[in-house]
Amino acid sequence: MKTLRIALAQINPTVGDLKGNSEKIIEYIEKARANDADIVMFPELAVTGYPPEDLLLDKGFLKNTMSHLDNIISHTKDIVAIVGFADSMNKKVYNAAGIIANRTLIDTYRKINLTKSNVFDDSKYFKRGRNYPLYDLDGIGFCPVFLNDLKHLDNTGNLKRNTSSSIILCMDASCYYTGKPAETEKAVSMIASRNGKYIACLNMTGGQDEWVFEGNSFVADTTGKIIAKSPAFEEDLLLADIRLKKNIPSPDYKMKSISIPSKLKGKRLPVQTKIVNTLEPVEEVYRALVLGTRDYVRKNGFKKVVLGLSGGIDSALVAVIAKDALGEENVAGISMPTRYTSEESKIDALEIVKNLNIQCIEVPIDTLYDSYLNLWISVFNNEPPSQLTRENIQPRIRANILMAFSNNFGWLVLATGNKSEVGSGYSTLYGDTAGAFAVIKDVPKTLVYELARWVNKRGGTQIIPGRILTKAPTAELKHNQKDTDTLPPYEVLDPILEAYIEDNKTIEELTAMGNDPALVNKIIAMIQKNEYKRRQSPIGIKITKKSFGKDMSFPITNRYRY
Amino acid sequence: MKTLRIALAQINPTVGDLKGNSEKIIEYIEKARANDADIVMFPELAVTGYPPEDLLLDKGFLKNTMSHLDNIISHTKDIVAIVGFADSMNKKVYNAAGIIANRTLIDTYRKINLTKSNVFDDSKYFKRGRNYPLYDLDGIGFCPVFLNDLKHLDNTGNLKRNTSSSIILCMDASCYYTGKPAETEKAVSMIASRNGKYIACLNMTGGQDEWVFEGNSFVADTTGKIIAKSPAFEEDLLLADIRLKKNIPSPDYKMKSISIPSKLKGKRLPVQTKIVNTLEPVEEVYRALVLGTRDYVRKNGFKKVVLGLSGGIDSALVAVIAKDALGEENVAGISMPTRYTSEESKIDALEIVKNLNIQCIEVPIDTLYDSYLNLWISVFNNEPPSQLTRENIQPRIRANILMAFSNNFGWLVLATGNKSEVGSGYSTLYGDTAGAFAVIKDVPKTLVYELARWVNKRGGTQIIPGRILTKAPTAELKHNQKDTDTLPPYEVLDPILEAYIEDNKTIEELTAMGNDPALVNKIIAMIQKNEYKRRQSPIGIKITKKSFGKDMSFPITNRYRY
Repeated sequence: MKTLRIALAQINPTVGDLKGNSEKIIEYIEKARANDADIVMFPELAVTGYPPEDLLLDKGFLKNTMSHLDNIISHTKDIVAIVGFADSMNKKVYNAAGIIANRTLIDTYRKINLTKSNVFDDSKYFKRGRNYPLYDLDGIGFCPVFLNDLKHLDNTGNLKRNTSSSIILCMDASCYYTGKPAETEKAVSMIASRNGKYIACLNMTGGQDEWVFEGNSFVADTTGKIIAKSPAFEEDLLLADIRLKKNIPSPDYKMKSISIPSKLKGKRLPVQTKIVNTLEPVEEVYRALVLGTRDYVRKNGFKKVVLGLSGGIDSALVAVIAKDALGEENVAGISMPTRYTSEESKIDALEIVKNLNIQCIEVPIDTLYDSYLNLWISVFNNEPPSQLTRENIQPRIRANILMAFSNNFGWLVLATGNKSEVGSGYSTLYGDTAGAFAVIKDVPKTLVYELARWVNKRGGTQIIPGRILTKAPTAELKHNQKDTDTLPPYEVLDPILEAYIEDNKTIEELTAMGNDPALVNKIIAMIQKNEYKRRQSPIGIKITKKSFGKDMSFPITNRYRY
Repeated sequence: MKTLRIALAQINPTVGDLKGNSEKIIEYIEKARANDADIVMFPELAVTGYPPEDLLLDKGFLKNTMSHLDNIISHTKDIVAIVGFADSMNKKVYNAAGIIANRTLIDTYRKINLTKSNVFDDSKYFKRGRNYPLYDLDGIGFCPVFLNDLKHLDNTGNLKRNTSSSIILCMDASCYYTGKPAETEKAVSMIASRNGKYIACLNMTGGQDEWVFEGNSFVADTTGKIIAKSPAFEEDLLLADIRLKKNIPSPDYKMKSISIPSKLKGKRLPVQTKIVNTLEPVEEVYRALVLGTRDYVRKNGFKKVVLGLSGGIDSALVAVIAKDALGEENVAGISMPTRYTSEESKIDALEIVKNLNIQCIEVPIDTLYDSYLNLWISVFNNEPPSQLTRENIQPRIRANILMAFSNNFGWLVLATGNKSEVGSGYSTLYGDTAGAFAVIKDVPKTLVYELARWVNKRGGTQIIPGRILTKAPTAELKHNQKDTDTLPPYEVLDPILEAYIEDNKTIEELTAMGNDPALVNKIIAMIQKNEYKRRQSPIGIKITKKSFGKDMSFPITNRYRY
C-alpha cells in the first residue's frame, strides 16, 4: 500500500480572464506543493472560466489559452497537475484536461461524452475526444475523468475495466440549483460503491452571469462514504490522503507512467482532512444568491450597487443579500414614494436602512408623476390617461432615477423582482424590471418569505421588520392596491408555476393536483403571453431546476391557447 | 411516361396556432385538389408552426397537434398530402411528415438527420427517425425528404439508391439571411443534376419572432434547371407537371404502394407553371423586413404601431417599412424634440410624415427634461448631473412617452436602432433601445442608407428627404453632437463589425484587411462590453448570417481583453 495525497483546487475563475485564471491556478499549484500533495486537480475549463460560450469561436482567444497553459506547465515542478482548458489544434477544439507533471505536458485528455445542458452545449464548440486516460504515478494508478465521461463509463459498465485499479479524479463545472449538491454527492457516491473505487469529485465555485457554481467538492471512498468535503460557495483546497494498493497494470489497457520526485516514498505527516457539513436548504439558496451577486458585481468591475427600496419584502431581501455580498458601504437604497405609498411602507423602508446601516436617499417622485400626467392630457386629446398608463409610469420614473444614480456615480442597479412576478408578468417593462442584475428573479415569492425569516433567525433580530413579513403584498401604484387584485395568492400561484415550468405538467395534471382548471388556464396564459417582458429583463441567479433564463427557449409569438 | 402534378404549398403558419394552421393546410389541400394535383406538400412542422421551441415540451400541445393532424387527414379525399408535424408516441417525439392519401395516414416519415442551427436545435426535442420513405403512386415513384436528410443522402452517395427512380419532394423550414435564397437554389440544383433527379424544394414563408422565412420554393429538373419558382416572402401554391418514367421497383429498397382515383390516367390540361424572378439583393432585404414586421405585429394581435421620429435616417426607414407592412393608417410617428434637436431634424421628421401620410404627434420633452435635471441637483448634493446622466435621460423620457402611447391605445412600439449601434452599444438602455420589436437591428448603418436610397428609387421621389441621406448622423443629445464623436465612420465600422461577427475574424486578420489595430481593438472591446445592453434589447429581424439575436451566446461577464 502507498499513500497518495490529492489536492482538489475548488477555485473561482472568471470567464475570459486567462491571465487572472492562470495566476490563480499557479497559486493553487504552489499551495498544493507546499502541502506535499502528489496531484493537484482543477475544474473543467479552469483556464478559460466556465462557461466561455462564444468566446470559444474567437481564434485569438483559443490561441491565448494555449499560451497561458504553457505558462502553467512551467510552474509544475515536482507535482502532477490536471488542468482543464480549451485545447485547439488544426482548427479542432476540445474540452480538455492537461495532464502535467514536473514541467511537462504528459498528455491531453479530451472529453469524450460531450455535455449538453441549458448552461452550455459542448457540441457547439468541441469535437469529441477518443481515449480515456489512465496513468501510473510511481506505482499508483489514477484516472482523470470529466463527470459526464464518468457517468457514461458507469452506465455502460466499463468503469472498472477502463480505470483499472486506480483512483478516479473527476473534474466538473456544473451549476447550482436547489438540492443539486446533495444529488451530485449521492450519484457519485453510488458510482464509487458500485465499482469499489475511490472517487475525488471536484466542482468549481463562483458566479458567472446567471449561474452559480457551488463547489462542494468531495472524496468518496470505495464504499461510497464521503471522507472529505469542501465548503460550498467559496474557494478551497481540499486535501486528502488515500491509501491505495500498488497498481496492477491492466492487460487490455494502456497506462502511461509518470514519475515525480519521490514524495510517495517519503515520510509525510498525515494531512488534516475536513468534512464540511451540508447546508440546510434555505441557507444553501441564500449563500448561492450572495455569491452570485458578489461575483456578478465584482467580475464586471463594479464596486457599489443601488436599488429601489419600496418597503416591501422583495427589495428588503435584496438589500440584505447585497450587504452580505458587498459590504454595507457598497449598497445604496433609494426610496421613491408617491401619493400611493403608505406610511407603513415608508417606515418599513427606513427601518431596513437603519438595520443594515446602508446609505439611503429619498427621492419623492410625485412632481415628475404629475408632469407626465399633465403632458399626456395635452397630447391625448384632453382625455385622461388610462389606469394602466398611470400605473406603469411610476416604476418607469423610478427606473430613470435608479439609472441616473448608475450613470452619475457608476453604481450597478439591482432589480428586485421575484420568480412569481417574472413568471406571471406582474411587472412593468423598463420600470421595476430595469436593472443590470435581478438577484431574486428565480426565487418564488413563497421562498422569498422563507429566506426573509431565515435572515431574521440568523441575525437573532428582525433585520427585516416583522410587519413586512405579515402585511399583504402590494405594488402601491394606486390606492389600496393588493397583488391579489391581479394574481391568485402566492401559496396557490407558486406550486402551479413550479409544476408547470420545472416539471412540464399539463393542464390535466395541474388540475388533478387539486387546482381550479380556470385558474390553471389563467396562470399558464399569463406565463406565455409575458415572454416578451422576460426577453428584455435582466439576467439573474438561477436557483431552481428551470429558471426563466437560458433554461428556456420559448417563442414570443405564440398563438397556442389552452 | 406519366405526368405527375405536384403542388407546393408555400404557406405562412403561426407558431402555436394549431387550429389556424390546420385550417390553412386544409384550404391549400382544397386548392391543390381544385387544380387536379396528385400530391400537395407542406413545409416542415407546418401544423405547429416553426420553430415551435419549448412548446414542444408541453405534452398537451403535442397531444393537440395529433388531433389536428387527424382533422387534416379527414380532408384528403382523392389526393396525396405530405404534412409536416410533431409526431409524439410513447413519450418519444419526432420531427415528422405524415404521408396521407385519400383520408388515410399511409405512413409517418420521421426526420433522420436532425438539424442543429441557431434557430432551432432538433435534438433538444426530437428523437431520430430510422427509415427513408419511398412510395409508388399508381406507377410513379416519389420520395418525400427533409432538406437535411436530402443533403445527407447526397453527401454519402446514397441518394440514387435510396430514392430509386422517383421524384424527390423536399420539405424545409429555414430562415432568411442575405443571399440565402440563391444559395439554397444553387445547392439543391446541384444535387438534382449530380443525381439526375427532379427535386421539388419547398420552404415556408412568414415571420416568427426574429426570423423570416423566405419561401422561394422551386422545382429543379434532372439537369438542375429551375423549371418552376414561387415568389419570395408571400404565400403561394406552386404547381408543376412533371413527366416521369414509370417506376421500376428497386431490388434492395422497399416501396409502399399508394393509389388515388385515377387522375394520373385521366386527361388534364397542362398546368401553367410560373418562374418568378429572383429579387435584387437590396429589395430582398427590404421585403424580408416588411414581412418580418407585419407578421410580428399581426401574429401578436396588434393592429397599429408607434415609433419615435427623430428626423434621422433610421426612424425614417422604419416608418417606411411599417407603412408597407401595416398600411399608413396603422403607423403613428411621435416627434419628441428637445433644445438639442436641430431645426433640420424637425423639418425632416415632418416631411417624412407628410410623404407617408401617417399620423404624427409632437410631444416636446424639454419641460420633463428640466424636471429631472432639477430633481437630480437636489438629490446629488447640489452637484450638477454628469454629461452621461444628462444625455441618457432624454431617450429614456422618449421611451416613457412611447410606452404611454402603447399602454393607452394598445399600439406596439417599434425600436429603430441599427446593427452598427446595437453592436457598438451606441444606444441608451431603456431609452432608444426600448420597444417590442427592433425592425432594423440586424441592418448595418451603411445598408440602412442603401435601403433608403432604394426606397426613394422605387417611389420615384424623395420619400425619405434627400437631406437625411447626406447629413452627418447625430443622436442630438447635446449641442453639435455627431456619431463620429464616439464611433469611427460607419464605412469603417461596418466592415470590421461584419468580419468580426459574421466571419469570426481575429484581430490579426482584421488588421491585415488594412484596419488600424488600435481601432480594431476599440471596436471589439465595444462589442464585448455592451453585451449587457443587447440582452435587454428587443428582438428584431435577422437578415445577416449572424445577428445579435439567438445566433449568439456571448457571456456578459467577460474579462477577456485584446
